[in-house]
Amino acid sequence: MSSPEVATVPPAYRDLLSKKGFAHVATVGAEGEPQTQPMWYEWDGTSILLSHTKARQKFRNLTRDPRVAVCILDPDNPYHYLEIRGVVEIEERSRTEAHRSPVQEVKRQGSLPNHKPGDERVIIRIRPTRVNTYGD
Amino acid sequence: MSSPEVATVPPAYRDLLSKKGFAHVATVGAEGEPQTQPMWYEWDGTSILLSHTKARQKFRNLTRDPRVAVCILDPDNPYHYLEIRGVVEIEERSRTEAHRSPVQEVKRQGSLPNHKPGDERVIIRIRPTRVNTYGD
Repeated sequence: MSSPEVATVPPAYRDLLSKKGFAHVATVGAEGEPQTQPMWYEWDGTSILLSHTKARQKFRNLTRDPRVAVCILDPDNPYHYLEIRGVVEIEERSRTEAHRSPVQEVKRQGSLPNHKPGDERVIIRIRPTRVNTYGD
Repeated sequence: MSSPEVATVPPAYRDLLSKKGFAHVATVGAEGEPQTQPMWYEWDGTSILLSHTKARQKFRNLTRDPRVAVCILDPDNPYHYLEIRGVVEIEERSRTEAHRSPVQEVKRQGSLPNHKPGDERVIIRIRPTRVNTYGD
């Protein structure tokens, strides 16, 4: 398993965390196979936050194995990127709270893509345990 | 393990395969943990091709577990994307051949990012076994 220690993001890469881009989030499935998907994200100063429904495969993967790898590419310079590995904690919130998630508010796009009325949403909190940086 | 069957990419998503973007490539490490990284890619009509050095973690991961998940996001519309899962075959080529890889030639950016003289390069061929599409 990954170390439970907390890793920090070097100052030269912190701008990436507030850019309006996507995090490519890799998890591991029931048979140990990789899965990956783009997601909106927010950085709250110590963790990456994702908003997710309980119905999808990534949620099932993360309840089974909380290890995750996230790639955040600078939308203005694809040779400047971060890979953050971490362990997730899933925060149950009421549907209303999660629907108005910080992820949604930061992105300010009105509504989450693919959100359907009645979806049960959770906040996935990723505490970095390792940070790899690429580019200048 | 994934099915060895070959999956096809629906026509509405084939344009993504020839765009000049990045593939986010997820693999699984020695302890079953996910890893992810952006890479240039080429589509040869049946497979995704990546050019990679033997020295890096992703290569070691893939020689241990050939299962991979690749996300290709439309650079012009991030809500239009593909997730391709597959099994890799690693093609050994001479250093000169791999350096002039099809991936490099398609991207026409002169040289591969992070390429160092003396790097031993291989071609990673991904045959899709499952294709998930998102957006219209």
